[in-house]
Amino acid sequence: VSTVGFIGLGHMGHGMSLNLLKSSHKVIGYDLNEQVLNEFQKAGGVRATSIAEVARNSDIVITMLPKGAHVKSVYLGDDGVIANAGHGKLFIDSSTIDIETSVLVAEKAAKEGHRFLDAPVSGGEKGASNGTLSFMVGGDEATFEQATPILSLMGSSLFYVGKNGSGLAVKLVNNMLLGITMAATGEAFNLIERLGVDPKKFYAIASKSTGSNWALNENCPVPGILEESPASHDYKPGFAAGLMLKDLCLGQQIAINTNASTPFGALATSIFSMACHSGLADQDMSAVIKFLAGNKS
Amino acid sequence: VSTVGFIGLGHMGHGMSLNLLKSSHKVIGYDLNEQVLNEFQKAGGVRATSIAEVARNSDIVITMLPKGAHVKSVYLGDDGVIANAGHGKLFIDSSTIDIETSVLVAEKAAKEGHRFLDAPVSGGEKGASNGTLSFMVGGDEATFEQATPILSLMGSSLFYVGKNGSGLAVKLVNNMLLGITMAATGEAFNLIERLGVDPKKFYAIASKSTGSNWALNENCPVPGILEESPASHDYKPGFAAGLMLKDLCLGQQIAINTNASTPFGALATSIFSMACHSGLADQDMSAVIKFLAGNKS
Amino acid sequence: VSTVGFIGLGHMGHGMSLNLLKSSHKVIGYDLNEQVLNEFQKAGGVRATSIAEVARNSDIVITMLPKGAHVKSVYLGDDGVIANAGHGKLFIDSSTIDIETSVLVAEKAAKEGHRFLDAPVSGGEKGASNGTLSFMVGGDEATFEQATPILSLMGSSLFYVGKNGSGLAVKLVNNMLLGITMAATGEAFNLIERLGVDPKKFYAIASKSTGSNWALNENCPVPGILEESPASHDYKPGFAAGLMLKDLCLGQQIAINTNASTPFGALATSIFSMACHSGLADQDMSAVIKFLAGNKS
Amino acid sequence: VSTVGFIGLGHMGHGMSLNLLKSSHKVIGYDLNEQVLNEFQKAGGVRATSIAEVARNSDIVITMLPKGAHVKSVYLGDDGVIANAGHGKLFIDSSTIDIETSVLVAEKAAKEGHRFLDAPVSGGEKGASNGTLSFMVGGDEATFEQATPILSLMGSSLFYVGKNGSGLAVKLVNNMLLGITMAATGEAFNLIERLGVDPKKFYAIASKSTGSNWALNENCPVPGILEESPASHDYKPGFAAGLMLKDLCLGQQIAINTNASTPFGALATSIFSMACHSGLADQDMSAVIKFLAGNKS
Repeated sequence: VSTVGFIGLGHMGHGMSLNLLKSSHKVIGYDLNEQVLNEFQKAGGVRATSIAEVARNSDIVITMLPKGAHVKSVYLGDDGVIANAGHGKLFIDSSTIDIETSVLVAEKAAKEGHRFLDAPVSGGEKGASNGTLSFMVGGDEATFEQATPILSLMGSSLFYVGKNGSGLAVKLVNNMLLGITMAATGEAFNLIERLGVDPKKFYAIASKSTGSNWALNENCPVPGILEESPASHDYKPGFAAGLMLKDLCLGQQIAINTNASTPFGALATSIFSMACHSGLADQDMSAVIKFLAGNKS
Repeated sequence: VSTVGFIGLGHMGHGMSLNLLKSSHKVIGYDLNEQVLNEFQKAGGVRATSIAEVARNSDIVITMLPKGAHVKSVYLGDDGVIANAGHGKLFIDSSTIDIETSVLVAEKAAKEGHRFLDAPVSGGEKGASNGTLSFMVGGDEATFEQATPILSLMGSSLFYVGKNGSGLAVKLVNNMLLGITMAATGEAFNLIERLGVDPKKFYAIASKSTGSNWALNENCPVPGILEESPASHDYKPGFAAGLMLKDLCLGQQIAINTNASTPFGALATSIFSMACHSGLADQDMSAVIKFLAGNKS
Repeated sequence: VSTVGFIGLGHMGHGMSLNLLKSSHKVIGYDLNEQVLNEFQKAGGVRATSIAEVARNSDIVITMLPKGAHVKSVYLGDDGVIANAGHGKLFIDSSTIDIETSVLVAEKAAKEGHRFLDAPVSGGEKGASNGTLSFMVGGDEATFEQATPILSLMGSSLFYVGKNGSGLAVKLVNNMLLGITMAATGEAFNLIERLGVDPKKFYAIASKSTGSNWALNENCPVPGILEESPASHDYKPGFAAGLMLKDLCLGQQIAINTNASTPFGALATSIFSMACHSGLADQDMSAVIKFLAGNKS
Repeated sequence: VSTVGFIGLGHMGHGMSLNLLKSSHKVIGYDLNEQVLNEFQKAGGVRATSIAEVARNSDIVITMLPKGAHVKSVYLGDDGVIANAGHGKLFIDSSTIDIETSVLVAEKAAKEGHRFLDAPVSGGEKGASNGTLSFMVGGDEATFEQATPILSLMGSSLFYVGKNGSGLAVKLVNNMLLGITMAATGEAFNLIERLGVDPKKFYAIASKSTGSNWALNENCPVPGILEESPASHDYKPGFAAGLMLKDLCLGQQIAINTNASTPFGALATSIFSMACHSGLADQDMSAVIKFLAGNKS
């Protein structure tokens, strides 16, 4: 039974690390935030005082961090994971970051004889605490097989995609599609209401027709249509508009880097950017329907 | 058993009228095109020599026409349906046209004691010939009930939406969503290929994730992923890009008329417009993926 | 010396008719609004009680109306201009409306032996009262020559464009460009400020460089850069955002009607539509900079 | 009289270095491309065999490089400028690159006691060879004053903007406006032609009206309107569409980095990206009018 290190114990990392603690693994964790470290310790985790301590004492290191800059410094810094991990360890980064940083870290890790997977997730905080996340994984396939038992403790769907960076690629492109369909579904409902048509009728028909999409069918932006949707609960997230904007910006980043033409992704980025500036960043992304209608948040 | 008139026996009207002929109804038909009239007659239809003849001799008149201007002249012209139908008849217009024209015709029909439904369809030529169309119906609910037996001969899903024009409203807004998701799915695949990821992997994951939508799941624009999709058959339609553009333009028309803000519908209209000008009008709408990649048709 | 009829004595029509009154022409006017009729009468105008009265008693009829529907009913109604004008008169419509309506009215006028010009203006209320409007004129060139003396009383620049409808074409396409450049200039300043650069420096350089455009150079959307600009006076119009939206919608209408691809015009329409819904309709169009920054009006 | 080093002697650098050679300065140059080095030598320049040699032997180093990655390695590499320049020198980078890289290099230079200016140019190869470039300069104002005599040898307009990076900020935002107005002007002409209006008439009016902008007035995209414009010479650049796309991508990069909302810049990036993929990259940016019309290059 291996020792698992966990760096980044915030909203997502907290739930993920607790699911590891339910197994027979010893889990050693670190975070800059004292409070989340305390909670991790209370739940049975071993509290480290530095990244280096985690790196030295773990067979597997999992990271869940906000931005590429954090991933870079946690892995590549002088006091970071690679400088202190010795050789032959398994690193799993579940952060949603830019692909270039992830591939760079993977290369540096390989040079020191480590294995590195990008393994971003979908499923949100609920999936993290329930252990029902989906993992989209990039890296060596044999490494993916080695990581499967650990990932299975935190998620219910594991997708192996391909080379390093491709887990992030799938995550970011999927979320670009989500951002577009969420906003487009919002404008569709705004139009249908201006045409004097009952939005419930539209939902009933379109969700079974060629216009159907996840944002419409499962995250319907009009209150009162789906009992469980954020829209029916004052747009409490769910998936906050500000986080959607972060993923859309990463999507534009990879589009620029690869010379891809993404007019709809670019428009969605602009719309969510304006919506967030207008005050909707902390509401569910489905609240973009209000911005499109000209409502102040 | 009533006599049914059918005006507009082209691609869609042909299949629809044949399904009526399979029933015990007498069907009297008219079209400006001699050839389609001949085929209708061969299939057992009664051939009329004018719109007026259809109007005089039918209890129910069904129309399936390309544009609002045709619907206006067929119903409101001096030799048209209303001027020749007497009183108390049922008119069903399955054309996909602008709402203003449809509501105007409905009002003129009502003034003469007729009942009028807008009943646009989805399902394409295949649905028309198989009798599996979906009808989205606007008008008086009692009239919808009266039309149900006839519509059931041509379609397998009947949706009553609301007042006159609302069948068209739902059709056009649904198709606006379809145009957006089709193009967005195309740009997503272009991006995923530039990132070096196997599009089949992306399909497998995204079609089960939050990016899922009908265009991705059922009309996947990359050849070889879905055996039945137009993309796997040289983009033979299916639903031609030129027809999608027509519906998107009608969608922009109703958005302008109601002061609705539809940035994604507007972008989709521009993209399909440029794609059609570049030579893709007669290919399946999923061929927009080629335009987005800069390929010449 | 001819008698000039003037229908539509609102903001623009008021100033224009007053400039006619300064000449030796007799001017007979009509408006649905009692108050503006009174003011016209006070200024020396002859007050008519109906459109028909204007039509019967004028050699030239000028119209300045809000929408195509008004132009249609004023010219083509049973009590309208054409039904009451006799033969051989000159009609000048300075309304900014859709081209289809204007061409239809021109054709009906020609059938009755009249001459019709579309002659939309730019220059705003200030130009109307100062007699410094620009007229963009469509119709027969000989008719344009006949109209020149009258138009010169109201404007300082007369542009003959071509056939009927082409005056409107130039006006609407010019204003589409203006809507785009106004919004684009707004987003440029928002970006420059986020980059920590003094907007005055940016103005000084860009207004003399390849980014220069009328909206930047003459209607700069940042307060305090141009003393005379609406931005420096709480965005008091100038040219209201709501009127810009009206022209952009007409621009999209003619784009749809001619199968033209106008992605930037479509985006500008969406942006101004959302901005107006958010409360900016009555402010100068340069206030779109605030919407783009996410500010509530 | 100081010795000036010049690294990057390609299209732009060639003309700029030749203007320096016309002065009394000794100029020592380097480029990876043998051929351009030979031409520089033939023109009187001193040929260096490495970046380090340039750095050691110059009082002022000017760089003109394609991308941020080149600037980073030229200045920060082990064999680079900073590692070999000693102390107290003046560096002027005229490359058009991302602001982050430029500011990073400026900081590293300052640490070693050097002064660094970002000084991107406009004016193209013609301006480079004629010595009529415009320089937009960011950095310390005193440093700008010191650089003025040298910059004056290569350019006719010198704009001091502000802190490091702000020269690039103004250049990139100005060019974002140019990309938008160029494409918007193209779509305006496409629409005007579909409306049956003579584009020369439109040019004559709009270039003097509120739609006027540099791309319309000075780089008119319709052949035959301006004798000198690229459009009148088979769209031979001028400013190539591929270079415009590069600047637009940098513009989106800085918008993402600063959370700015730039819907028009994003759309222009997508349109130029698709246009370049369709084969227009090497034509003048005004050729985007052809892409917007659906023409194959």
